[in-house]
Amino acid sequence: MEQRFITFTTDFGMSDHFVGVMKGVVYNINPRARVVDISHEVASYDLLDGALTIAQAYSYFPPETIHVVVVDPGVGSARRPILARSEKYFFVAPDNGVLSLAIEREHRVSVRHITAENYFLHPVSQTFHGRDVFAAVAGWLSTDLEASNFGREISNYVRFSIPAPKATKSGIQGVVLKVDKFGNLITNIAPQDLPQLFVPHPPRFKIVVGKHEVTSMRNSYAEGPDGAPFAILGSMGLLEIAMNQASAARMLKVGKGTEVVVSSSA
Amino acid sequence: MEQRFITFTTDFGMSDHFVGVMKGVVYNINPRARVVDISHEVASYDLLDGALTIAQAYSYFPPETIHVVVVDPGVGSARRPILARSEKYFFVAPDNGVLSLAIEREHRVSVRHITAENYFLHPVSQTFHGRDVFAAVAGWLSTDLEASNFGREISNYVRFSIPAPKATKSGIQGVVLKVDKFGNLITNIAPQDLPQLFVPHPPRFKIVVGKHEVTSMRNSYAEGPDGAPFAILGSMGLLEIAMNQASAARMLKVGKGTEVVVSSSA
Amino acid sequence: MEQRFITFTTDFGMSDHFVGVMKGVVYNINPRARVVDISHEVASYDLLDGALTIAQAYSYFPPETIHVVVVDPGVGSARRPILARSEKYFFVAPDNGVLSLAIEREHRVSVRHITAENYFLHPVSQTFHGRDVFAAVAGWLSTDLEASNFGREISNYVRFSIPAPKATKSGIQGVVLKVDKFGNLITNIAPQDLPQLFVPHPPRFKIVVGKHEVTSMRNSYAEGPDGAPFAILGSMGLLEIAMNQASAARMLKVGKGTEVVVSSSA
Repeated sequence: MEQRFITFTTDFGMSDHFVGVMKGVVYNINPRARVVDISHEVASYDLLDGALTIAQAYSYFPPETIHVVVVDPGVGSARRPILARSEKYFFVAPDNGVLSLAIEREHRVSVRHITAENYFLHPVSQTFHGRDVFAAVAGWLSTDLEASNFGREISNYVRFSIPAPKATKSGIQGVVLKVDKFGNLITNIAPQDLPQLFVPHPPRFKIVVGKHEVTSMRNSYAEGPDGAPFAILGSMGLLEIAMNQASAARMLKVGKGTEVVVSSSA
Repeated sequence: MEQRFITFTTDFGMSDHFVGVMKGVVYNINPRARVVDISHEVASYDLLDGALTIAQAYSYFPPETIHVVVVDPGVGSARRPILARSEKYFFVAPDNGVLSLAIEREHRVSVRHITAENYFLHPVSQTFHGRDVFAAVAGWLSTDLEASNFGREISNYVRFSIPAPKATKSGIQGVVLKVDKFGNLITNIAPQDLPQLFVPHPPRFKIVVGKHEVTSMRNSYAEGPDGAPFAILGSMGLLEIAMNQASAARMLKVGKGTEVVVSSSA
Repeated sequence: MEQRFITFTTDFGMSDHFVGVMKGVVYNINPRARVVDISHEVASYDLLDGALTIAQAYSYFPPETIHVVVVDPGVGSARRPILARSEKYFFVAPDNGVLSLAIEREHRVSVRHITAENYFLHPVSQTFHGRDVFAAVAGWLSTDLEASNFGREISNYVRFSIPAPKATKSGIQGVVLKVDKFGNLITNIAPQDLPQLFVPHPPRFKIVVGKHEVTSMRNSYAEGPDGAPFAILGSMGLLEIAMNQASAARMLKVGKGTEVVVSSSA
């Protein structure tokens, strides 16, 4: 049996037995597998939040890692379980788009509809495929079975993109994609969307978020002024509105889904 | 030294050093042990909640796994530490019934009063037996010591059962045992309590929970109607009141301990 | 490659991808390393809380464990990353004092300024040194590299102490350092600060905390009276104000930073 890494990203929380059970299923199949939690606090049923979480994390793991993502509002319905293989990684998830943002960065991706029920836990429940399908398949896959054992290749799997920011007369309009633990507001605006903002001495600009205006850009959180929000290029590679040792979300009273309008004089 | 799995189920939360310390104690004794968290969010001091959590999870782990359960309102009092051995698993816990629901499903169970203080961490505190007693014993047990090294067999260990639903004139009266992360209301009503409800085409029935009536049964969460609660046989093998992509607990404003009255025309 | 233990203590929370990413970085460098979480719920930016957490936990781990502590309000500023080596352990952290309480208990401590950027993840972000610096350095260190490879020894690293209680006319005045998951109020008062209190039959005493008076001392939580707070020497070796199966913090409506005044007739 191989020592293989398997990651879990779910919206199951840590308060119930769900995640522990999934680990038990994996280790019962392959005691040498090593499960690593990415996060179990994906917002309930939120496919975009799940897609962002795995997309931020998967590429730091060793080659051949199996990434299991279970955000699965359609559990028990006709939605398919899928297994995606890229040059470096494996992904196991429901076919609802939750792998979209990871897969779009990978090369030589093939996606299979998992139909080999002999690798499932039986009886398969209608309510907990994290246990009966996804953990079990990941466990078997970690024993060095070929992806082709699990089902046939498909091309019509579900995909979505991060909502794109829109150009406006004097800049760009985006949205807050997520709020992190520190209250930083992570937007959908990347450097390529507004290159003039991400240079050492940007022109004057204004970012309107909720009822507030942000007019300064910093390179680190610690450079931020006391008590006022600022813009920063965060570790996700996206524009953030942040504060120095305080929560921008709480201070500005805004959150996920809030509009972010950037206008620049350049 | 053996690579053995040890699971932890506690009410210690994840915000303090408690769980990390318990893992340190195990690995210092047996660096090849592998600790897996089931949950540390058991409701504080709640033996039934702890008993339900481990009962749902333990059987998915590899044979010989050592399950440590620390929900221990009596820490430092005269309550005994126990070690239970079944055909497939080991359990280490305080003698307060928290193992009841796991043990009652196992075969060939023997229970010992742990008295071999040479396996404890010294000095033994009066307030943190998770560290000084339970983690230390689990660590030593994982080095393939026989259970008999830890103390003598006892038969008067504490046991309790899930509160049983009561038959009523036209059905059954149960209770909400727990609310899971998604807000599903898990009751103490199992298929054998009311078999006519759990067939493909059940007769008309009515479930009263709080001020609400539930009259439909679904096979999966995704089949549920928008905005209305429904009944479902959940992955714990118990009747749940759930909603499709929403929290039944929040919507119905009910929680753990709420009465659930099922009446059926059949 | 060695199987080495690496612990993580951070204020990153568990809801984002941060902690998972740090583990990926470690395992990509050394797949045989074993990362153990101590806590990721250190209060945001709170160096004392981080220092208390690692100080309580580190010594239970096997010799040669690498303890990574990332509470880092100065990320991206000029604050240095440091590597401390004691007789038994390694510590990797920002140079902001977060290691103070662990290091002061250790023998033969040497501290280095980590400057060997070849062990960092590139490009090094200005906002996530947990990933690009601390996890990467811990990963490389776990491959049995000597500490001297990472930078030169320094002596002017940042240190602080637990705020000391002050003597008063009839006793001592301290403060609540932290509130644990159960609502116990952990003070900065140790047995050596007021030895007469910590004997089998202490003289009459009075502890004023918020608007409440506590006049009894117990040896275990379970000995506590119903519904009234009591004093206890907790597992951190400090005086706690606690309740039996209830939260003293909630009941007394006090928290971190609240004054605790002990007066004794002896």
